[in-house]
Amino acid sequence: MKHSPALAGLIEALRALPGVGPKSAQRMAFYLLQSGRAGAKGLATALTGALERVGRCRRCRMLTETELCTICSNTQRDASQVCVVESPADVVAIEQSGGYRGRYFVLMGHLSPLDGIGPEDLRVRELLVRLEGTEVEEVILATNPSVEGEATAIYLAKLLKPLGMRITRIARGLPVGGDLEYADEVTLSKAMEGRREMG
Amino acid sequence: MKHSPALAGLIEALRALPGVGPKSAQRMAFYLLQSGRAGAKGLATALTGALERVGRCRRCRMLTETELCTICSNTQRDASQVCVVESPADVVAIEQSGGYRGRYFVLMGHLSPLDGIGPEDLRVRELLVRLEGTEVEEVILATNPSVEGEATAIYLAKLLKPLGMRITRIARGLPVGGDLEYADEVTLSKAMEGRREMG
Repeated sequence: MKHSPALAGLIEALRALPGVGPKSAQRMAFYLLQSGRAGAKGLATALTGALERVGRCRRCRMLTETELCTICSNTQRDASQVCVVESPADVVAIEQSGGYRGRYFVLMGHLSPLDGIGPEDLRVRELLVRLEGTEVEEVILATNPSVEGEATAIYLAKLLKPLGMRITRIARGLPVGGDLEYADEVTLSKAMEGRREMG
Repeated sequence: MKHSPALAGLIEALRALPGVGPKSAQRMAFYLLQSGRAGAKGLATALTGALERVGRCRRCRMLTETELCTICSNTQRDASQVCVVESPADVVAIEQSGGYRGRYFVLMGHLSPLDGIGPEDLRVRELLVRLEGTEVEEVILATNPSVEGEATAIYLAKLLKPLGMRITRIARGLPVGGDLEYADEVTLSKAMEGRREMG
């Protein structure tokens, strides 16, 4: 059965959302037009508003509505540490964990030669500009513990070494509350490798 | 970490979509503002357009951009059969199955006394108006095979009986390609109950 043009257009547009395939897009469109019309109107307004107002922090590239994000403009934060992450969501996750008081730099994802994503796409040049001539003493590479995230960390570590700062990588190991018996081999070997003295 | 107002507003607005919780709403918002800005713009436009143009078919309450939907205005369809379903998505599913040539009536969901959804909310009065004084010979009740869908079918069957049309209910039984061994008891007993002569 062919959908009417506006309905077909809405279904197609909803597929721009990550993780939404044709079936869920249709379900969402029907729901919005059937019983969620107020929500649909609110969503259209919120999208337009966010596109107009939300940009990137000049210093760390985090999403922000001001020139500097709340973290970069907070003088209470430790200016000697910069944590490099793949995306704004990673900043939120680390902030929620509550253990970090330094600043950030948000890359545009990770290196992925197969998808044609090289250093320029990640905004590595902006990272160098961000770090040069500053009081930064440690760069924490917190890209994902995936193959691409690992490769990105290795690439950045090499690139940043001449700047003379301490370069660290977040620990890989067993997740807290996890079960050693069910851990995959790579995680387990990383956990062994990264073991620490106790007491 | 507190999101900026426009970002927080977008995350909240995305939760109007069915099946989207706070975590996926945040993921969607970040994605849209980070690398999906064209898609976000398209979505805002499509939402506004669909809200303006898509309404209900005057006769069957299917979503449509014209006064009568394509099925109701198609004179090739069998006017003697009306299939009653819970939602526009059910019409699409039955049309895709390809076996039905009659018309439809789309309820607003199913009866659910606990949620305060009674006959008036389903637009049962409109269904009666739709059926009265027409050439309809058979009403096929195709509400979902759930407890609420079943109750809705039983209610409608009683209500429509005085109109003198044939009232039928879609068959419940084993799904094609399913495995008898793993079927639940209710489905299996419905499948036994609904058995047919062969040959």
